[in-house]
Amino acid sequence: MQTDLNADAGESFGNWTAGDDQALFPELTSVNLALGFHAGDPVTLHSSVQLAVQHGLGIGAHPGYPDLQGFGRRAMSLSPDEIYAATLYQIGALQAFLGLAGAPLQHVKAHGALYMRIHEDAQAGAAFCRAVRELVPQAGLVTLAGPAGEALRQQAQAQELTVWREAFPERAYIASGQLAPRSLPGSSIHDPQEAARRAAEMAQGRVTSLEGQPIELQVDTLCIHGDNPQAVQIARAVRAQLAEEGVTLRAMGGGAGAGSLLAGH
Amino acid sequence: MQTDLNADAGESFGNWTAGDDQALFPELTSVNLALGFHAGDPVTLHSSVQLAVQHGLGIGAHPGYPDLQGFGRRAMSLSPDEIYAATLYQIGALQAFLGLAGAPLQHVKAHGALYMRIHEDAQAGAAFCRAVRELVPQAGLVTLAGPAGEALRQQAQAQELTVWREAFPERAYIASGQLAPRSLPGSSIHDPQEAARRAAEMAQGRVTSLEGQPIELQVDTLCIHGDNPQAVQIARAVRAQLAEEGVTLRAMGGGAGAGSLLAGH
Amino acid sequence: MQTDLNADAGESFGNWTAGDDQALFPELTSVNLALGFHAGDPVTLHSSVQLAVQHGLGIGAHPGYPDLQGFGRRAMSLSPDEIYAATLYQIGALQAFLGLAGAPLQHVKAHGALYMRIHEDAQAGAAFCRAVRELVPQAGLVTLAGPAGEALRQQAQAQELTVWREAFPERAYIASGQLAPRSLPGSSIHDPQEAARRAAEMAQGRVTSLEGQPIELQVDTLCIHGDNPQAVQIARAVRAQLAEEGVTLRAMGGGAGAGSLLAGH
Amino acid sequence: MQTDLNADAGESFGNWTAGDDQALFPELTSVNLALGFHAGDPVTLHSSVQLAVQHGLGIGAHPGYPDLQGFGRRAMSLSPDEIYAATLYQIGALQAFLGLAGAPLQHVKAHGALYMRIHEDAQAGAAFCRAVRELVPQAGLVTLAGPAGEALRQQAQAQELTVWREAFPERAYIASGQLAPRSLPGSSIHDPQEAARRAAEMAQGRVTSLEGQPIELQVDTLCIHGDNPQAVQIARAVRAQLAEEGVTLRAMGGGAGAGSLLAGH
Repeated sequence: MQTDLNADAGESFGNWTAGDDQALFPELTSVNLALGFHAGDPVTLHSSVQLAVQHGLGIGAHPGYPDLQGFGRRAMSLSPDEIYAATLYQIGALQAFLGLAGAPLQHVKAHGALYMRIHEDAQAGAAFCRAVRELVPQAGLVTLAGPAGEALRQQAQAQELTVWREAFPERAYIASGQLAPRSLPGSSIHDPQEAARRAAEMAQGRVTSLEGQPIELQVDTLCIHGDNPQAVQIARAVRAQLAEEGVTLRAMGGGAGAGSLLAGH
Repeated sequence: MQTDLNADAGESFGNWTAGDDQALFPELTSVNLALGFHAGDPVTLHSSVQLAVQHGLGIGAHPGYPDLQGFGRRAMSLSPDEIYAATLYQIGALQAFLGLAGAPLQHVKAHGALYMRIHEDAQAGAAFCRAVRELVPQAGLVTLAGPAGEALRQQAQAQELTVWREAFPERAYIASGQLAPRSLPGSSIHDPQEAARRAAEMAQGRVTSLEGQPIELQVDTLCIHGDNPQAVQIARAVRAQLAEEGVTLRAMGGGAGAGSLLAGH
Repeated sequence: MQTDLNADAGESFGNWTAGDDQALFPELTSVNLALGFHAGDPVTLHSSVQLAVQHGLGIGAHPGYPDLQGFGRRAMSLSPDEIYAATLYQIGALQAFLGLAGAPLQHVKAHGALYMRIHEDAQAGAAFCRAVRELVPQAGLVTLAGPAGEALRQQAQAQELTVWREAFPERAYIASGQLAPRSLPGSSIHDPQEAARRAAEMAQGRVTSLEGQPIELQVDTLCIHGDNPQAVQIARAVRAQLAEEGVTLRAMGGGAGAGSLLAGH
Repeated sequence: MQTDLNADAGESFGNWTAGDDQALFPELTSVNLALGFHAGDPVTLHSSVQLAVQHGLGIGAHPGYPDLQGFGRRAMSLSPDEIYAATLYQIGALQAFLGLAGAPLQHVKAHGALYMRIHEDAQAGAAFCRAVRELVPQAGLVTLAGPAGEALRQQAQAQELTVWREAFPERAYIASGQLAPRSLPGSSIHDPQEAARRAAEMAQGRVTSLEGQPIELQVDTLCIHGDNPQAVQIARAVRAQLAEEGVTLRAMGGGAGAGSLLAGH
């Protein structure tokens, strides 16, 4: 049994710092790097790629909406053509730095409001998948685990993309297998141990719903929130719990990132 | 005898239009495409690459300072590290679109204030050259013809880059072989026929200085200003004059762009 | 009988030009000035205020979403607090230039996607109205004529704001009195004479619907699209038609702008 | 004997936080609020004004270059007209929030590279002073204490502006009375107690130079760096040392901010 542990990273911008990537990267197997539209800048992207390579992580492109002020979390009605071109542009920028570092692109995961959009809007999803297929067909596409990711996965698979299913140990799920709306009490898990227990469940294909029922959830990668001040603590708790339950951590692409495991923790 | 005719292009941004690329591209052999920092956006870049390919032009990356409001024409004290990373980022973004179009990157030419900076500031020039060499060593670096480009050319050649020398038929040169400051009367040439005559001189290795003296100027490519309302008219006049004087137009890389000639005009 | 003729203006940005304000302003009685978020920049705003004062126009604030690339036309899920603060900020910036020019703020009209949002989303509308009431209670709020503007007008009136009703001679209306969706054939009127005839109808409280029925439409101001290449021609046709039908043009605030009429055209 | 203690503040942007304004404001008598060009956004500006009013601080406008990525610290060759318009725009935006809060504008202090520019470039300084005089003639202009501020003070006084002289307890001065270049060893003071001792010296019109000599330095306000993690600790040390030496802290405008003293700490 194995899984992957990813986080959004490289989210600093100019003089502003977000997250503690130096402390967090040793705990992960994959990272999703901000590409300058919602966060990140060329210097940050350069150093983030180098740091990820140093820790043997699987590196993913994390394109977002062009909205620094809103951190890519505000819905924006970009047209499918705008989504297509913006995705190509951002992935291309990352590939420059990956090329210099000799690292492959492991995956593509949309950020924030764009991530939700491509799951809910078929035309947007198709535009995003097309950009990935045409530019980096070997990269995996990260999608929401559970029924909310089904439509996007079908689109991606129709375009012969590899897909991965992502779950969030710090977020509650409802009985349908969908994320509990943030407006519901209990929708966010703040206790690192509780998040770790949920991570171990998820790695084994299930999770306890907000209503207290065990539900099935097929998961390829676990995402923790890199901008949470507790992120490092949560990642460590997750790693410990996974190790205890015999789950191996390995980058979702099975590649370079997997090596970080061998270095041990 | 042969030369190349280039212009900055792809400089529209969102709802704003700059230049008439549809009319201008058939007259050129090379283009320098804006990459989103000083002008251009992903959708514009995508369509500009397609248009350039359609016309068989040699395509160049045209990285600039991150200053849309100033169109990259305002000096900005980016550090050499910032210049290095911003150059990699912008070229990488272009390469995504070139890859899809199956077109090679012919050259790299810095824009506006960054172009001047890398000629005048050795550390900035070294950072820029290093980005080009590490990412796209096969691409030529465009430099100012004459003594103003000498330092940058030496740096580029020390890094084993191919260099090209660029002159401006619409700008006057002083006896030293340098561009006449814009503050001098007569520093800009507005008459298309006069620009065409100067272009033909330049293609043959000389130009008449502002002081009226013939001076030597080794030139590989001629640049006309794409955002000039007369740009198309000037390009046509240049082409006609070059043809009359037996100068062949060919993309500086000698590659795809050269084909545009065969199609004739 | 009287009405007002307004257009969005001051929409140039840095090196990019939008519209021909020099030619258009003499034909208008009011302008809505872009404030730097979706278009415009400080230098453009400064000169636009001066030009509007010179032509005796009623000057309006035209706040928009922070989206230069999308020209403020893309929906963005700013929170009501973000809308409130962004509106205060943009109006405040305009007031600096109005103060120097000794010109009053006549009205406030939201731009593009924000304009639609405050009509459709009660919380957004309330946030926008609150900003106007707290900062510039004497300014009128421009709303969509017809039933689509009813909810916003009620909110504005509950906050004791003056409201104006705006119609678009270049757009078709359906029988309900709402704008015809752009996807419908005939939803845009391109012929200046036809737009002028519709403007004269609107000034008299009615319009012929897309279905061919005469419908009532109470209108205080007519908006023509300043970024239309035909804008000046349309404005002139509207002025001529209004004069022929005995409708007086006067800035909606009845103030400085009204003077432009006296100067005649 | 009295002085003022100011810091740059309101420098968060969207999701990114800079400084700990909640903890720092109680220790200050004046603040310089970022206005959205180099840092800050409308929501941050709104809450920063409210926080400053709550603590009775003298509020200053802190206009900067339009360069979020560089935090306004990169030199940019804006023209004097661009500086003039950008200054009006930013101060105008602040005044919207001050008006709602019923707080006066106490002072104007340029940020980062713009602050240095207006001290060194007479045309830029004149453009900046003109914007202040035309828009907010009652506000004081903050200038570098010592000879580096002399030229700007003369310009400001010729325009009948009130000027204040600012010194930096965390920075070393050379014998001429100018700031020691950051490249010199000892140019920055990191020990809060040492900074506090220097602050007390400065409040009394002198400072010990980097060379160890006592030099005269007429100072109206002391600036500490709000983005320094030790900022609160330094501010407290400065306050304690000033109290011990009998120096009263009072906002430079002598107004609302002065009240914060009476409330004691």
